[in-house]
Amino acid sequence: MLTGRDILTTKQFSIKELDLILKTATRFEQALKEKRVLNNLDGCIVASLFFEASTRTRLSFEAAALRLSGRVISMPEAAVSSLAKGESIADTAKTVDGYADVIVIRHAQKGSAQTAADYAAHPVINGGDGSGQHPTQALLDLYTIFKETGDVSGLTITLLGDLKNGRTVHSLSYLMAKYGNRMIFASPSSLAMPAEITAELKSLGGDVSETSDVDEALAESDIVYVTRIQRERFEDPAEYERLKGSYVIDMKTVARAKKGIKILHPLPRVDEIATEVDAYEGATYFRQAHNSIPTRMALLALVTGRA
Amino acid sequence: MLTGRDILTTKQFSIKELDLILKTATRFEQALKEKRVLNNLDGCIVASLFFEASTRTRLSFEAAALRLSGRVISMPEAAVSSLAKGESIADTAKTVDGYADVIVIRHAQKGSAQTAADYAAHPVINGGDGSGQHPTQALLDLYTIFKETGDVSGLTITLLGDLKNGRTVHSLSYLMAKYGNRMIFASPSSLAMPAEITAELKSLGGDVSETSDVDEALAESDIVYVTRIQRERFEDPAEYERLKGSYVIDMKTVARAKKGIKILHPLPRVDEIATEVDAYEGATYFRQAHNSIPTRMALLALVTGRA
Amino acid sequence: MLTGRDILTTKQFSIKELDLILKTATRFEQALKEKRVLNNLDGCIVASLFFEASTRTRLSFEAAALRLSGRVISMPEAAVSSLAKGESIADTAKTVDGYADVIVIRHAQKGSAQTAADYAAHPVINGGDGSGQHPTQALLDLYTIFKETGDVSGLTITLLGDLKNGRTVHSLSYLMAKYGNRMIFASPSSLAMPAEITAELKSLGGDVSETSDVDEALAESDIVYVTRIQRERFEDPAEYERLKGSYVIDMKTVARAKKGIKILHPLPRVDEIATEVDAYEGATYFRQAHNSIPTRMALLALVTGRA
Repeated sequence: MLTGRDILTTKQFSIKELDLILKTATRFEQALKEKRVLNNLDGCIVASLFFEASTRTRLSFEAAALRLSGRVISMPEAAVSSLAKGESIADTAKTVDGYADVIVIRHAQKGSAQTAADYAAHPVINGGDGSGQHPTQALLDLYTIFKETGDVSGLTITLLGDLKNGRTVHSLSYLMAKYGNRMIFASPSSLAMPAEITAELKSLGGDVSETSDVDEALAESDIVYVTRIQRERFEDPAEYERLKGSYVIDMKTVARAKKGIKILHPLPRVDEIATEVDAYEGATYFRQAHNSIPTRMALLALVTGRA
Repeated sequence: MLTGRDILTTKQFSIKELDLILKTATRFEQALKEKRVLNNLDGCIVASLFFEASTRTRLSFEAAALRLSGRVISMPEAAVSSLAKGESIADTAKTVDGYADVIVIRHAQKGSAQTAADYAAHPVINGGDGSGQHPTQALLDLYTIFKETGDVSGLTITLLGDLKNGRTVHSLSYLMAKYGNRMIFASPSSLAMPAEITAELKSLGGDVSETSDVDEALAESDIVYVTRIQRERFEDPAEYERLKGSYVIDMKTVARAKKGIKILHPLPRVDEIATEVDAYEGATYFRQAHNSIPTRMALLALVTGRA
Repeated sequence: MLTGRDILTTKQFSIKELDLILKTATRFEQALKEKRVLNNLDGCIVASLFFEASTRTRLSFEAAALRLSGRVISMPEAAVSSLAKGESIADTAKTVDGYADVIVIRHAQKGSAQTAADYAAHPVINGGDGSGQHPTQALLDLYTIFKETGDVSGLTITLLGDLKNGRTVHSLSYLMAKYGNRMIFASPSSLAMPAEITAELKSLGGDVSETSDVDEALAESDIVYVTRIQRERFEDPAEYERLKGSYVIDMKTVARAKKGIKILHPLPRVDEIATEVDAYEGATYFRQAHNSIPTRMALLALVTGRA
C-alpha cells in the first residue's frame, strides 16, 4: 500500500495507511524484543542526508535501517558544506538517487523534501523540512499514543508550549484530526498555532479549541504533548520571564491534571519538564524516543516494499 | 592484475588495466540492475578519510563499498581536526592501516595520497589530492564515455572551462591521450591547461589543440566535458563577467554543436549548464554521477583481489 | 564475568578480569590474522558518541565493532551541537539506550561516562571523559606490553612527559600498580603526576618514584611510555623552550637507555619521538595503535556477553 511512496507530510495518509504503519511498527517492536535479527532491508542502502542539525533523528533512522540489515551512507549536518555548495536540492536528489534505495532528508528549507521527491526515483522520507513538517516524528508520536492508551481515537490531547514554530505539533495535529480526537492548544498568545493550520484542521472536521489556561486544559486531557518555549522566540524578554513558568510541567502540574495523564515530548527536553516527573508512570517521553526505532523501521520497510 | 595496487593517478594504468576496470564496472552494474546482493568485500573494512570537503565522492565510495558487502569507517571532512591535529599523513596512514583493508583518502595537499600509499601496507585509493589528481573521477568519466558512445577511442572531446585548476580534467586528459582521442582545450586564456600537462600529453602522443572559440570546438566534438569557472579564479572581475557567458551550455549551444554531442560534468553543477539541458538526451551528467558506483566498486574489488 | 558491565575506569578491574580481556584480545587478534569473519556482534548496534575530538579512537572502536559484524551508529565530534544542545548527558544516555546495544561515549566532562552508565540500561564504555580516565587506551597499552615483553608484571616502566594532564597515563598507572610493576614518573615539575593519584597508587601498593632525569630513568626501564608536552600547558614560554628538548626521544636517547627498551606512545605523535626512531625494533607505537582493534573487540564482545 505504501511501496514506492514518499513520506512527506502527515496530511498524505489515509486511516488505512496509518493503521498499516502502526501494525508494522508493532510487529517490528515484537521482533526487537525477541532479539530476532531482521533482514528486510538486506542489500538496501539508505542515504541519510542531514543538512540541518538533528543528531537524534539521524541516529534513530540509521539504527532503524541497521536493525533491518540495511546499509547506511550518512551525511551528518556538519559535513553539509560540500554537498550543499551552491548545488540545488534537485541536483543533489538526482545524484544521491543513484547511490541509494531510499533517501531520508532533513533540510532547513520548507518544501525541500517535496523537491527531493520530485527528482528522485527512489522513495524520499522527510526528516524535517524547516518550518514545514516532521511526519516521522508525528507517526512515532501516534504509535506512542496507541501503545500508551491502547487507542488512537476518542482522546483529548493538549498541545502545549510553542505551537507557532513547532513543526512537530503541526504534523501531529493533522493525525489527531484524522482520528477525530479533541485537541486543546495551550500556548502564549504570541506562540499560538498558526491560524491557517487551525482553519485547515477545522475544515477537516477537527475538534479544536485554544486556551492559555494550562491547568484547565490538562484537567480534561488524556495526553499532553509538551514542547519547549525558547527565549529567543520572544521580542520582549519580560514576557518570556512572566510566561515560562506556566508551561513547565512538574509533579504539582501532574497532581492538578486528569488522573493518569500521559506526558509526551519530542525531546530534547531542557527544563520544560522537571526531572522529578521522569519517575511518574505517565511520563512517556523516553519510551516515546525508543518508539522511533520500530516506527522508522516500519516506514523504511513499507516504502521499499519489504515489510 | 591490480590486486594490492594503489590507485594514485591516471598515468599509472596500462590499456589492459583500464580495460579490466571497464569490464569489471560493467559486470557490477549488471549485477546492480538485477538487484543481486554481492559479497565481494565480505569481512573487509574500507576506511574513508576525507580531510577535504567532498561529501559526494565520500558517499559514492561508501555506497560502492556497501554494495559489495564491505564495511565502512568514515571520517567526514568536518571531523578532520582531531586526526589531522599536527600529525603527519605518514603517521595517519600507518595507524589507519591497522584498522582497515583498503584506504580511500582525500586531502588538500598534492602528493598526500602517494605519501599515504608509501606508508600503508594496504591499498590506498586517491580520492583527490589538492591540485594533483582525482583518478577515480576520471575512471568513472571514462566508463561513462564507454557506455554512452560504445567506444573509448576514435573520439573528439572538448574539455571546457577552467582547465588550469581542475584536477578532474587533468586526470581525464591522460586517459584520453592513452586511447589516442583528439582533445580540444577550450578555456579563457588565463585558465588554460597548464603548459607542462599539455607538453606531457603531446609527448605521450596526445592529439591536443587549444581554442577560446567554444562553438567551433563543439561543432567537431563527440563529447564536451564541462567544468565550472569560478569567479574567484579571476584577478579582474570584469574579465569574469565578460567571459562567463561563453562557457555556459544551454540548448542554443547544443543546437550549434555536433549532432548527438554528449555532455559530461563532474558535478556539482551551478549555472554552467542550464537546467533546460537536463532533458536533452545527450546530457549524461546524472548518469555519469551514478556510474561512480559500479566504477568505484570495480576499483575496490580489484585492489583487494576480490573482483 | 564482564557481561552487562560498564567500562568506566581502569580501577574497576580485578586481575582475573584483566587476564580475561588480554586472553580475549589475543584470541581475536589470531582470528584477524587468519582473516576469519567473526559474527560475535551479529545483530548488535554499537552507538559511537564522540562529543569531543577523537577521530582515532572513534574509528578504532567502529572498526572493532565491524570486525565482529556489529553495526554502528556514529556521532563524530563535529556533529555534536544538535545532540548536546542543552540536553543533559542523562537524557542523551536514556534516549540512545533505546537505539543501541552498547554505547561508547567520549565527552569533555569528567564523570560523563559514569553519568551515562547510571542512566543507560545497556553497557557504557568510556572513550575518554575529559581529565578523567581513558580506560580502553590503557587496556590496549597493557595488551601491547603483554605482547611486546611477554609479561605484565616484574617490569620497570617510565611514564614520560606531561603526567599532569594526560588521562592516558593516569589510567595506565593503576593497571601497572595492580600488576606490581615499578613506575618512574619523569616529567617537568610543573607537569608532575597529580599528588592524589600518586598517593592512591602508593596506597594500592604501587612502587612509584619521581624524577626529572630522563636518562637515569630510561637506563633502568624495560618500557618508556611517552606523552606529548604541549606548549600551551606552560605559563612561562621560556620554561617550555628550556625543557622540551629533554623529553624528546631520538636514537641518542635510545642508545643511552636500557638495552631493548620498548617505546610506547598513545599517538598522535608530533615531534616528541623523532621519526628516526620508527625503524628501531623496540618502537612499538604503531603496533600499539593496531592493538586497539583486538582490545576493543574484546571489550565490546565481553560486555555484550558475546565473547
